[in-house]
Amino acid sequence: MRLLELAERIGCALRGDGDVEISGVAGMEHATACQITFLANPKYAHKVKSTKAGAIILHESAGDVGLPALLSENPYLDFARALEQFYRPPRPEPGIHPTAVVHPTAEVGAEASIGAYCVVGAGVRIGCGAVMYPHVVIYDGCQIGDDFTAHSGVSVREATRIGDRVILQNNVVVGADGYGFAKRADGSHYKIVQSGPVVIEDDVEIQSMSNVDRATVGETRIREGAKIDSMVQIGHACEVGERSIICSQTGLAGSTVLKKDVLLAGQVGVSGHLTIHENAVVYAQSGIGGDIEAGAVMSGSPAFDAATWRRAVASFPKLPEMVRAMRQLEKRLAVLENQRIKEEE
Amino acid sequence: MRLLELAERIGCALRGDGDVEISGVAGMEHATACQITFLANPKYAHKVKSTKAGAIILHESAGDVGLPALLSENPYLDFARALEQFYRPPRPEPGIHPTAVVHPTAEVGAEASIGAYCVVGAGVRIGCGAVMYPHVVIYDGCQIGDDFTAHSGVSVREATRIGDRVILQNNVVVGADGYGFAKRADGSHYKIVQSGPVVIEDDVEIQSMSNVDRATVGETRIREGAKIDSMVQIGHACEVGERSIICSQTGLAGSTVLKKDVLLAGQVGVSGHLTIHENAVVYAQSGIGGDIEAGAVMSGSPAFDAATWRRAVASFPKLPEMVRAMRQLEKRLAVLENQRIKEEE
Amino acid sequence: MRLLELAERIGCALRGDGDVEISGVAGMEHATACQITFLANPKYAHKVKSTKAGAIILHESAGDVGLPALLSENPYLDFARALEQFYRPPRPEPGIHPTAVVHPTAEVGAEASIGAYCVVGAGVRIGCGAVMYPHVVIYDGCQIGDDFTAHSGVSVREATRIGDRVILQNNVVVGADGYGFAKRADGSHYKIVQSGPVVIEDDVEIQSMSNVDRATVGETRIREGAKIDSMVQIGHACEVGERSIICSQTGLAGSTVLKKDVLLAGQVGVSGHLTIHENAVVYAQSGIGGDIEAGAVMSGSPAFDAATWRRAVASFPKLPEMVRAMRQLEKRLAVLENQRIKEEE
Repeated sequence: MRLLELAERIGCALRGDGDVEISGVAGMEHATACQITFLANPKYAHKVKSTKAGAIILHESAGDVGLPALLSENPYLDFARALEQFYRPPRPEPGIHPTAVVHPTAEVGAEASIGAYCVVGAGVRIGCGAVMYPHVVIYDGCQIGDDFTAHSGVSVREATRIGDRVILQNNVVVGADGYGFAKRADGSHYKIVQSGPVVIEDDVEIQSMSNVDRATVGETRIREGAKIDSMVQIGHACEVGERSIICSQTGLAGSTVLKKDVLLAGQVGVSGHLTIHENAVVYAQSGIGGDIEAGAVMSGSPAFDAATWRRAVASFPKLPEMVRAMRQLEKRLAVLENQRIKEEE
Repeated sequence: MRLLELAERIGCALRGDGDVEISGVAGMEHATACQITFLANPKYAHKVKSTKAGAIILHESAGDVGLPALLSENPYLDFARALEQFYRPPRPEPGIHPTAVVHPTAEVGAEASIGAYCVVGAGVRIGCGAVMYPHVVIYDGCQIGDDFTAHSGVSVREATRIGDRVILQNNVVVGADGYGFAKRADGSHYKIVQSGPVVIEDDVEIQSMSNVDRATVGETRIREGAKIDSMVQIGHACEVGERSIICSQTGLAGSTVLKKDVLLAGQVGVSGHLTIHENAVVYAQSGIGGDIEAGAVMSGSPAFDAATWRRAVASFPKLPEMVRAMRQLEKRLAVLENQRIKEEE
Repeated sequence: MRLLELAERIGCALRGDGDVEISGVAGMEHATACQITFLANPKYAHKVKSTKAGAIILHESAGDVGLPALLSENPYLDFARALEQFYRPPRPEPGIHPTAVVHPTAEVGAEASIGAYCVVGAGVRIGCGAVMYPHVVIYDGCQIGDDFTAHSGVSVREATRIGDRVILQNNVVVGADGYGFAKRADGSHYKIVQSGPVVIEDDVEIQSMSNVDRATVGETRIREGAKIDSMVQIGHACEVGERSIICSQTGLAGSTVLKKDVLLAGQVGVSGHLTIHENAVVYAQSGIGGDIEAGAVMSGSPAFDAATWRRAVASFPKLPEMVRAMRQLEKRLAVLENQRIKEEE
């Protein structure tokens, strides 16, 4: 495809030679002369000089970098849109595979593709355009909207409600029992039935191997547009706010609430029964044990203000030296004190 | 159901109006006038004033809180039992689905429900009352007791032994190969066969996506009544003691022993070849690198006494200031020392 | 088997009585008189006195320990080889189960065993000697070498390329979509198609429940002989170097490169777009936020030199006391200063 054609398809202004042939998209370090690259984060501007890309998507403010360019208000978004011109994920043909076990009372909308060995339980309703890869299990009573995608190994437990355009990557589990036990007098643990369904709103994507538990009472809810990375654990009765981002291997204990636009980086742990308010950011490996204010940026285990944290951790390697320095100070001080005492005697 | 009837069913004394209609159970913040709530932890006593619940389960010592009440020695346990009056998890009908592949040499006890596409290997024995949801795979030679529950996506590897009333939530893996390699002289890794089975005793529950590895030699054992949360990794040849609690995303490296009634909170890491003695408690995100005494309460990475830890981490944010303060002290001390030197000259 | 025969089979010199009957292998603490044990790590030499094993595999330099011995240059490797004389993991018979759904355009090599309910997509090529347990799903277009082993619940996504002798334990996911979203002006997240396949080279093993994401552009690559433990997350476009070892519950964010022979212990977190150079070692629960030099040994979150870290964390429990001590120093210093001021007045 010529660069000019790409510019038209994704609606970007062209600067420079529109006749360059573009056959793909790549990062600045790996791009070749027939690929287009992008500059989204100004901190990588110095890499532009050494890229071998044939063209670049960038913001007008980046100036002329000596390459044919597509000008974009949001270069990262337009990189994504350019990539779609060259790569479309495969999509199975519509149709229900003869080995799929769909309960007679289940309703599946038009244009659905249901793969081999899928199991769809009693009373399930699935909207139009669903793509279920092989080996997806939908338990009884689930209600699922349009354009649902579920990859192999997904299980959706009883009575889950799922909105439109939801994507579940491989082996995601939605609605398994929460971890709830009451201690008996003899120290043994009595299982508490987990009565509350999971609700997943529109435009949520959950990456492979993540787990959203059902609630003891009430519900567990993932709100519109939230994106959950791989191996994330969402405990019973949690709420994840609109457009929140939860990175890999993070865990939320039970009944915790994330308001909208929260960002949790990877391997964060969040205790139960607390609220992280909107636009808060929590850095990787942090531990959250109490409510977090809107817009706060937190780090550490236990977490505190990230700017303070950055200075504090810079002190960690100096601690052994500090201990020594303190002992020195103490000795020097004792010398002065003793001299003083002698003088007074 | 009238409150009086609920009181009788769960065996609690009634205080106040037994005619209140109760149709469900909820937490204090979400309960409505037709729901019963509970007060188990005295630290939430202040919330009772604002609850809209129609009745409450509490300990007699909580006094009259202005709501019809069920008096309980263990309000959290009776909350669980009350909840069962209103919600029973669905249970599939007995019967073996025609698509289930059960090896001719396998024996499955009475009243079993074996779902679509389950696979039961050669020589497997499963007791009475098993419920296996679709897509459960039991490898050859497993021995499983009565009242076994396994949700979709569970795999139980060769020769695993499982007791009575064991529950495996979705995608749990039991008995996969442990991580064992011997380094050759050329630096490559030689796989060590993992010969030892996993043994899961009675009344164990393992939540979704957890993994219990088989042992290199000997066995990996989860003792009676232990409850393991989601995404927990139990390494080869570990032992988890009776009634121990292991919260989500915690990992045990190989050959580690938990004695009975141990509590590990979420995201804890435990090194191999060590022992955590009975009744020890380890807080979230801690790292355990050595044996832990009975009854110890530990926190931190690496972990130390939790009470000391709480004070230590309170100092973390003050570290940058401490470094500065120390430099100030040093300067002030140097001033005094210089004055002293001048005096002596 | 007599000890002499075992010595011959694994090619070790015999010292002592070759007529001892050996029927198995065990660790020093659990071995009985008919088992052979091993001493690989000199730090466990003191345990030899109390073992009840009938024989031992050890290095000649360990001297005579009063037990019949097999002398080995690499006792841990020969322990592994001895164990194979007594335990061979079960291997299913060759053949394609009638319920397996193999696409007409797929090619499966000789001697393959494909279990019940496996699904093999269009255009897939699998070499000789594959063992696929029940419920393995291979998406369209995958290319897989000889002697492939995949346990139940494995999913291999579209266009993945896999070398020879690769082992995937249960529920491993290879090639699911990476976590990539571009933020729109309204704050919502636009899914970026993940176009790049995963490539797994020869002799890689991935333990149960681990996840290797496909790349946005380019590829994600696990190089020859790398061994990845359970519940590890490998983000999009990462590279894992030859023979690298990644322990359980560790996560790599996107586009990170591990060079050869890197060792990451359990629960480590590694940020994106950085390089860990060869032979680096990272201790458990560490957080890596920048490049790591070849041969470095790192610990902590954020990580720094492990030897310094060990001294630093030894100071953590003393921090509250340090804060107090500093206040004391300050007071004592102020006393001296005040005395000085009075003198000068």
